[in-house]
Amino acid sequence: MIVPRLIERKRDGGSLAADEWRDLIHAYSAGDVPDYQMAALMMAVFFRGMTRGETEAITDAMLSSGARLDLSDMTGPRLDKHSTGGVGDKVSLILAPLIAALGVPVPMMSGRGLGHTGGTLDKLEAIPGFRTDLSLAAARAQLDRIGCALIGQTGEIAPADRKLYALRDATGTVESIPLISASIMSKKLAEGLTGLVLDIKSGSGAFLPALDREIDLAKTMIELGHDRGCPVVALVTAMDRPLGNACGNAIEVRESIEFLRGAPPADLATVTYALGAEMLLLAGVCTDREDAHAQMRDAITSGRAADRFRAIVAAQGGDQRVVDDVTLLPSAPVKMEYRAARDGIIQSVTPRVIGHGIVALGGGRRTMRDVVDPRVGFDVFVKPNAVVTEGEVIAIVHAADSSGSDVGRRVLDEAIAIGDAQVETLPLVSHRITSSAIELLHQPASRARSSTGSSR
Amino acid sequence: MIVPRLIERKRDGGSLAADEWRDLIHAYSAGDVPDYQMAALMMAVFFRGMTRGETEAITDAMLSSGARLDLSDMTGPRLDKHSTGGVGDKVSLILAPLIAALGVPVPMMSGRGLGHTGGTLDKLEAIPGFRTDLSLAAARAQLDRIGCALIGQTGEIAPADRKLYALRDATGTVESIPLISASIMSKKLAEGLTGLVLDIKSGSGAFLPALDREIDLAKTMIELGHDRGCPVVALVTAMDRPLGNACGNAIEVRESIEFLRGAPPADLATVTYALGAEMLLLAGVCTDREDAHAQMRDAITSGRAADRFRAIVAAQGGDQRVVDDVTLLPSAPVKMEYRAARDGIIQSVTPRVIGHGIVALGGGRRTMRDVVDPRVGFDVFVKPNAVVTEGEVIAIVHAADSSGSDVGRRVLDEAIAIGDAQVETLPLVSHRITSSAIELLHQPASRARSSTGSSR
Repeated sequence: MIVPRLIERKRDGGSLAADEWRDLIHAYSAGDVPDYQMAALMMAVFFRGMTRGETEAITDAMLSSGARLDLSDMTGPRLDKHSTGGVGDKVSLILAPLIAALGVPVPMMSGRGLGHTGGTLDKLEAIPGFRTDLSLAAARAQLDRIGCALIGQTGEIAPADRKLYALRDATGTVESIPLISASIMSKKLAEGLTGLVLDIKSGSGAFLPALDREIDLAKTMIELGHDRGCPVVALVTAMDRPLGNACGNAIEVRESIEFLRGAPPADLATVTYALGAEMLLLAGVCTDREDAHAQMRDAITSGRAADRFRAIVAAQGGDQRVVDDVTLLPSAPVKMEYRAARDGIIQSVTPRVIGHGIVALGGGRRTMRDVVDPRVGFDVFVKPNAVVTEGEVIAIVHAADSSGSDVGRRVLDEAIAIGDAQVETLPLVSHRITSSAIELLHQPASRARSSTGSSR
Repeated sequence: MIVPRLIERKRDGGSLAADEWRDLIHAYSAGDVPDYQMAALMMAVFFRGMTRGETEAITDAMLSSGARLDLSDMTGPRLDKHSTGGVGDKVSLILAPLIAALGVPVPMMSGRGLGHTGGTLDKLEAIPGFRTDLSLAAARAQLDRIGCALIGQTGEIAPADRKLYALRDATGTVESIPLISASIMSKKLAEGLTGLVLDIKSGSGAFLPALDREIDLAKTMIELGHDRGCPVVALVTAMDRPLGNACGNAIEVRESIEFLRGAPPADLATVTYALGAEMLLLAGVCTDREDAHAQMRDAITSGRAADRFRAIVAAQGGDQRVVDDVTLLPSAPVKMEYRAARDGIIQSVTPRVIGHGIVALGGGRRTMRDVVDPRVGFDVFVKPNAVVTEGEVIAIVHAADSSGSDVGRRVLDEAIAIGDAQVETLPLVSHRITSSAIELLHQPASRARSSTGSSR
């Protein structure tokens, strides 16, 4: 294997054979191929793409570089959900206990926030004592006991992917559909799933803002799963504004707990139930979508979903009392009300500005070495097309100090525009993509204002 | 300077500012930007190219990363010639003493062979004792004394280019016109030249086989020189067959000495005199091309050119007796005559096959660490369209042992095709390119057989 020749072949539009990808990833993982050659190859892949066979080969190579969660003796379904990432996206925190409460095991491996998008692990760790660094053996035992484990990518799983992702992050080669797909699927396939639901974010706050690129990403992951015995269904959901009201770590846990206790913001409920229904359908535990929604509502109103979250928090070392008393979550010392500067109609709540604003407040990461302040963030009570009155409180800044609240005010000044016209927004759930079809769902746009004021 | 953002900007078709390139190259040179980020950036440059301003900025940054040959107190012209590299290309060995003998100083910095193309330094070092690792101070002193110094790129000159070239060589990012141009010109500008002549090789044996790419390369280097007070003229010359007869290290020195003593192969004479005339015109020491040719012929026939080469060899520690007795050059123990397998017309003498064949015999490099055997190579006495008779000696293999001569025979079987039809060949000198124009020269194709048999 002469690496510069492989790089040149990819650079010039050719493709590498499956065994070449396998040998390359194994040699890179072992330190026998240097970072600089892999970086050049990743940039060539960025420009030239990968064939389906190549994407499968690199996925398999990364998957086989580490251990898997061995669930082969489990006979029933095991489902997970993956989001391409957005602002205010706390759906995983809600769906994991909710689906587990309905008898479907959820071995969920999540990531940390980076740039403008938050990460499920950071949110969970806002719960005092909560640990996400479970070994695969501990996760497996917890899955048997309470049907859900919420863990990070351990060093055991797909170490080649960890190394390669860190390199791509440092070399401007993240935004490649086959590489994103291979990275995600190598980890998801290591969970031993029987099905996976993808939440593909669309709109300005999405990881890949162009919808056709998002759909290509979904199709690539669906193919990868399909060929490996793990059916994948994707929903395209709106990320032209934050999801729900809370945007931050502890405050998103609070909103998730409020959801599990029966008081969700409307947009968050729509998206969460749509994704949950797909999980239950893939698991084969409901007759149709209507049945799925009824089961989920029942798990919420009966308290079973909250009970399951309590059990998960306790099992992972966290303070389970937070489920009954959200004031036990870390709380920012400065909470500043943000008021509408004029009468009018909300034109936009720009997720990227909010997301980068969380980072500016200390609640996110510019690099993976940054330490996250779980307390800070924004509660934004308005959505595009909401009618507001001058002086009305439309958001709250959660800040570590008064200079932070100044930063937060400027962030909201930039993120929230008030005008006079109605604006177009994306449907909350716009497409359903399976291995055989892309359905346009034509869901209505989100309501102008969330139905709950409980977070104020 | 956040390097991943710079990489992404270039990747997405933007350009970097001059100070960004300067800071980047300086930080890379100092080890503050890692190889892997630079490798990704170089691959993005491969795909996206560079603006004229960017190419100037990276050239200046590499130039200013090291020392220059300070010729500011020399009032007269200083000329050099650069070739994009080919097989049998010993023109530098002839022109350096020839032009110096005509009173024009030639501070010539050359490279080593890599892949199928040979390098002037390797050829010179075939002369027993010849040293090319002169310091800049020693080169300067020699230039004052005998008007010519033949040196390698020392650690003093453009160290950033050395580091970057090694990285590009390992990462499939060599073949980028702005990067090649910047690499060459950063070194040439460090020689303190008043003019530079480029020999742009075209045809299958050229570094960039597509002529339009070669012309783009020439134009880029001409612009870079022009903007920095160093006029550059380029000739496009044929590399669809080897230049001259000898292809190897010691045997190319032999053919160069034969040239300086008045017995050149015709094709080599045509190309060498054409390039030499451009140097003399740029130096302003001749009235026109005809005068230039007359001066060069006189320097040869009077023995002044050979005398100057003798002086250079002596000054650089070599055995000057080789100029009068080429049998003192290293000689291969096995010399195998290669005969035409049939009557017919030579269809092709493929330079890449010959070039890789020299490497296979041990006379070239696969990597920069390889040690070169100066003795081996090929004398090929025929050119495309030569009429040959079965059993006629058309080449000689110079090999280290009998297994080498077997390798050499197979190389020639592949490189030399005999058929029945006349074939088209490239004109020996096809285009003349200056900062203002591209002239099509319509030189006739090379004669079918070189006019000298002296090397047999």
